[in-house]
Order: sequence, then structure tokens, then C-alpha cells
Amino acid sequence: MSKKIGIADTMFARVDMFKIAKKALDDSMEPGIKLERYTVPGVKDLPLACKKLLEEQNCNICMALGMPGDKPIDKTCAHEASQGLIQTQIQTNKHIIEVFIHLDEGSNEKELKEIVKNRTYDHTMNAIALLKSKNKLQKFAGKGIRQGKENVGEIK
Amino acid sequence: MSKKIGIADTMFARVDMFKIAKKALDDSMEPGIKLERYTVPGVKDLPLACKKLLEEQNCNICMALGMPGDKPIDKTCAHEASQGLIQTQIQTNKHIIEVFIHLDEGSNEKELKEIVKNRTYDHTMNAIALLKSKNKLQKFAGKGIRQGKENVGEIK
Amino acid sequence: MSKKIGIADTMFARVDMFKIAKKALDDSMEPGIKLERYTVPGVKDLPLACKKLLEEQNCNICMALGMPGDKPIDKTCAHEASQGLIQTQIQTNKHIIEVFIHLDEGSNEKELKEIVKNRTYDHTMNAIALLKSKNKLQKFAGKGIRQGKENVGEIK
Amino acid sequence: MSKKIGIADTMFARVDMFKIAKKALDDSMEPGIKLERYTVPGVKDLPLACKKLLEEQNCNICMALGMPGDKPIDKTCAHEASQGLIQTQIQTNKHIIEVFIHLDEGSNEKELKEIVKNRTYDHTMNAIALLKSKNKLQKFAGKGIRQGKENVGEIK
Amino acid sequence: MSKKIGIADTMFARVDMFKIAKKALDDSMEPGIKLERYTVPGVKDLPLACKKLLEEQNCNICMALGMPGDKPIDKTCAHEASQGLIQTQIQTNKHIIEVFIHLDEGSNEKELKEIVKNRTYDHTMNAIALLKSKNKLQKFAGKGIRQGKENVGEIK
Repeated sequence: MSKKIGIADTMFARVDMFKIAKKALDDSMEPGIKLERYTVPGVKDLPLACKKLLEEQNCNICMALGMPGDKPIDKTCAHEASQGLIQTQIQTNKHIIEVFIHLDEGSNEKELKEIVKNRTYDHTMNAIALLKSKNKLQKFAGKGIRQGKENVGEIK
Repeated sequence: MSKKIGIADTMFARVDMFKIAKKALDDSMEPGIKLERYTVPGVKDLPLACKKLLEEQNCNICMALGMPGDKPIDKTCAHEASQGLIQTQIQTNKHIIEVFIHLDEGSNEKELKEIVKNRTYDHTMNAIALLKSKNKLQKFAGKGIRQGKENVGEIK
Repeated sequence: MSKKIGIADTMFARVDMFKIAKKALDDSMEPGIKLERYTVPGVKDLPLACKKLLEEQNCNICMALGMPGDKPIDKTCAHEASQGLIQTQIQTNKHIIEVFIHLDEGSNEKELKEIVKNRTYDHTMNAIALLKSKNKLQKFAGKGIRQGKENVGEIK
Repeated sequence: MSKKIGIADTMFARVDMFKIAKKALDDSMEPGIKLERYTVPGVKDLPLACKKLLEEQNCNICMALGMPGDKPIDKTCAHEASQGLIQTQIQTNKHIIEVFIHLDEGSNEKELKEIVKNRTYDHTMNAIALLKSKNKLQKFAGKGIRQGKENVGEIK
Repeated sequence: MSKKIGIADTMFARVDMFKIAKKALDDSMEPGIKLERYTVPGVKDLPLACKKLLEEQNCNICMALGMPGDKPIDKTCAHEASQGLIQTQIQTNKHIIEVFIHLDEGSNEKELKEIVKNRTYDHTMNAIALLKSKNKLQKFAGKGIRQGKENVGEIK
């Protein structure tokens, strides 16, 4: 039976993050996984979008893609969204991989876009792994992995 | 069958935000959408007002309109209200579009009122779009859209 | 059928806020509204007191009366209480009007007591209005009303 | 029928707070009240310990005894614990009296221990009062009572 | 009947914390306790991993192992994860022992690894104790125990 990854994205973001997730899925060459998309205005709308993808569209897992702003109010919004995403997971018993890139993470637009690309790509691969089994990511445990930035590695 | 947008607004706000939402709906020329209004003292009363609009008045979507003050305690109130609005969405499986304009967002009353007008108007259009389908806003995804202020645009 | 307003108050507060709420109800000359009181140690005990008033004492609406202290830990307590009050509303589908006066809101005890009196009195009137209908406060929407302090008014 | 007060305490605390609660109960000379104890590592484990005492051990009320540390991370832990304690009350419809003494509340160990003793003792008396009726603490309402420190009193 | 401890760990951590928990269990020489492992990307994914371990894998208790980063955003992530872990406990009525070591807790990598080892080891022993009975840790109550660092001790 085919599986579905729900992708919730926003108008507020400054990069088409869905396209990156789609490329990652294509590159993974996993047969039988479909994407279901839901677009909302901003990150605070993501928890419900994910809930509806998981419950009404029968997605098996979700990705919440967003790019919160760089002002204090934006940090608060992102925090509220994150809390809602965790609550949604607890209520649905399904994973939502949060892929947030804050607009102040890069020192310029090019760097920012690179982080967006890498983090979204890597987390799509994580979502695919979690779809398969709870032990699929086990070989990476404790390795200091950083999606979207250089890994810091394991302490020897 | 006609649809209903619930509008919860406050006595604390300094602009009649409902009137703006109503104008946006009129301008949209969407037939068969009605507004149901609920007025409460302040933003912390909005989560329940929205819950009652969604559950007892059978609204299909809600807008929570508010203008939090500019002091630290007001920021905390707005944060609590936002958390409650997200929880309400998770419990009802319906969207609540939060339209908050903080009293310190504009440098004077005229500018503030302009932001209130634009953000409320734009988000009413978003609510109408979300009423129709989860993909109605898809064409704006990742475009750096800012309701009430100038868009920052997509990173090329 | 008569209606009941639940009043939860605290030992921590420095003014008998219940007495003010009772006076407001008397002044309103509304027949058929009764008060049901519940006293707890501090503001963090108010969410449950309100829940019990709403569910076990069949109150139709509640007021949570408290006077949080002026230290950082007190601000945190008030924040936790507020979050709990909102959660309680979402679970019971009934309003809880929060009437908190922070001990540092007035520059002296006389001023503080004045704020307590006005805010408690005004919010009791709001509670009575909400008991009647969701549109009873509509004429005050967007008017910049401040319970306990001078109104800031509508932006023209 | 006899009643039960659940007492949840921690290994992290630096004083045997249970012993103080037990002395208060003995001093109260209330017949027919039993204590049920549950010891956990730290304050973040208290919400569940209380939930289990209330639901699995049929306690009628709980006390959550803890002594959070003095570093920022400890303040965050205490905040999370407090939020969980309020959520637990809302879910069980029973009171949990939180008795937290922060390690930086006293200027030395002797003072700190004194606060621990007084606050735990006083709140045990409050718990006994709440067990009896919702109006048992009414005579102290608005009196500026401070458990563990000097009362600030009512504003005349 | 044998019991199961669920262990949720992350790719973000810089030490294989699962291995330490396993060694502690081996050292305890407790027969009839099995470990069930679940690996996720970061700490914000731990609440759901634990919920699934407790509900779908029938674990009796869980440990949430993580090493949050040292930046403000990492502190926020850890806070959100902690809130989710407490909510999960309240919903499942089972303990989740949170074992978080912040990357700035040690002044160098060696010291950090030592804290990770000790805290994970000690909390595994706590989890085993909580599996047995609610009074198993009672003898350590109020003793100022610090997992991963030197105990501060009881105030005499």
C-alpha cells in the first residue's frame, strides 16, 4: 500500500520549500510514496494544516515547512507554532518533522537559501526513514548531525 | 450550501476591525458566505469566542481580530491568546486566522490604522481562500508575503 | 431560569475583590443572577477553582480575581495561571473573565486599590453582558476600552 | 469515609519536605486524613506523580513539593513543572497545591530552610481546608497572605 | 512478566547515550527488563517517539535522551520538547525520565561527555526504581541529589 507524506508550507516563506522536498523524494527513488500539499499564510497556521493532512488526508507523516522572521515577535510566533506542532503529534500519534529556517540564520540571501535547501532536503530524507521504521535512523544516533549546517560530530 | 466565517473581535482594539473584514468579503463578491460576529473584552477572550463560533454557531472558519497593547504584559497576553487560538484549532479541526496588530507596530496612529486595514483585509481574503480548498493559496507559497506590510518577496 | 456567575478569588490578593464584584452585580439590578464563590491560596489555583465552579456548581460564566506580585517569579505564576484559565475555557466552552491586577500597576496603595476597584467592577459588567448574548458588547468593539484605567479610545 | 492527601516529593530538594507536611497534618488533629507519598527525581516528574496519586491511589487532593535550583535552566524546569501541574488539575478536577521553594529565595541555608518549613506547613493547612469545602479559606480572601514569608496584608 | 523501558534518542546528540543506558541496565542486574529503542532527528521529535514507545510498543516507562545546543534557539527547542514530554506523561499516565545535557554544560568536550555518562547512567537507575514502586526512591527524598553532577546534599 502506498504511503503519503503531508507537506504544509507557507506564503510567508521566501523560498519554495515544497519544491525541495519533492526533489528529495524523487532523488530517494522510493516507490509508493506520495506527497499531499497544504498551503497556509504563516507558521502559526501550520499545526492545523498538519492535523488536517494527518487526519483528513490520511497522511502517514507530515513536514511543516516555514521561514519565521527575524524580529522578536516572529520568534514568539515560531515558538507558538512549534508548541502546536508537538501537541498535534501527541494527539495524532504521527510524526511532524518541523523544518523551520529563521530569516536571520544566514548572513545573506544566498547563504540563507543554501540552508533552506539543505535542511529541507535532509529532513525529507529523515521523514522517509521514519515512515519505514523506528530504527531506520539508529545508525546516526549520537553523531551530532545538523540538518542544513555542517555536522558537529560525535565526541570521541 | 452557504458557509460561515466567524469573526471574533475586542473592545480593547482601537479600530473597528470587523468593518474591514466585512468590506473585504463584500469586495470578494463571493456569494453564499455569511459573517457571524462575537465581541469580547480583550485578546485573551478570543480563543473561547472562536471555539463557540466554530462549535455552537457552526462557522466553517474563524478570524480572531485584536490589537494587543505595547507593554510587556500586553505581549504576554497576546502570546497566551495565540497559544489558546492554536489549541482551539487543534481541538476543532478548523482554521482560525489570527489577525493581531500590536499597538507599537506603527510609528503614529495613521500608520497603525493603515496596517490594521491592510492586514485585516488581506487575511479576510486568505480566510475565504482556505474555505474553498487547501490548495487555493498554493500559488503564493514561498513568495515572502506580508499581510499589512510590504511583501519581502521570494529569494531568487 | 436563574443564572450563576462563579467568582474565584485568592488569599494572596490585597483587596477583597469579591465584594467589588458583588457591588457591581447589585448595581446592575439584573434579576435572577446569583454569585457562587470559591477561595483559593493564589492565582495558580484559580484555573481549577473556575473549572469546578463551571462544572460542579453549574456556573454559566466565571470571573478569576487575582493580584499577582511584582517579582519576576510572580509574573511567571500569573502567566501560568492565565494559560490554565484559557485551557479551562476551551475545555468547558464557557467564558472565564480574568481580572488580574499586578501589584506594580499602581505607584502607591491608593492608586492600586482604585485600579482594582475599577477593573473588577467593569469586568463584572462585561461578564453580565456576555451571559446575555455574544453581541451585547458589540457596540464597544474597537473603541480602545481599558478596564481599570482610562480608555485610550478609537483611532479616527 | 477517610480522605487522602497525595504528597509528591523529589530527590533534588534539599530538605525533607514530606516530614514537614506530615507534622502539619498531625498538628491539625484532623481525624480521618491519610497521606500517600510518591518520590521522584526532580520537579519535572511531579505532574505525573500527582496524576497517579489522584487517579490510581484515589487521593482527593495533592501537594507537589519541590525546591528548584537557582540557575536559568532551573527556572525553566520549574515553569514547565508548574504548567504540567495546572494541566493535571484541569484533567483530574482535583487541586494540586504547588509548594516550590527556589534555592535562591533565602540568603543562606538557615533562612532557606525556614522558608521551606513555613511554606510547606502553611500550604498543608490550606490543602486540608480545600479538602473540606470551597469556602473554608474565604475568611482569608484578599488579606495579602504569603505562605513561607511575612504576610503583606490587606490594603485599607 | 517482563517489563520494557523505552529509550528515545536523537541524531543531534554528540554521544551515544543509548549505550550508556544499556550499560546501566546491565550493571543493575535486573532480570526481566528489556529496552526498546527509537531514534529521531532532534529533541523536538522525542515527545512523539516516547508516546509511540509507551502506547504502541507497550513500554512501561520511557527515557528521553537528548543534547540540546547552546544557542538561544536551542534553549527554546529544549523547552518545547520538555513541555511535550510532560504532556505525553499526563496523557499516557506513564513516566518519561528526561535526560537532557545542554552542550554548554561542560567547559570542554571531556567534561561534557562525563556529565552525559553520569546523568544518563544515574537516571537509568531512577527509571528502574520507578518501574518497581512509587516509594523506591523515597530514601533519597530531600537529599539534594544531582544526576550528572556532584550532589549538593541535604540542608541540616
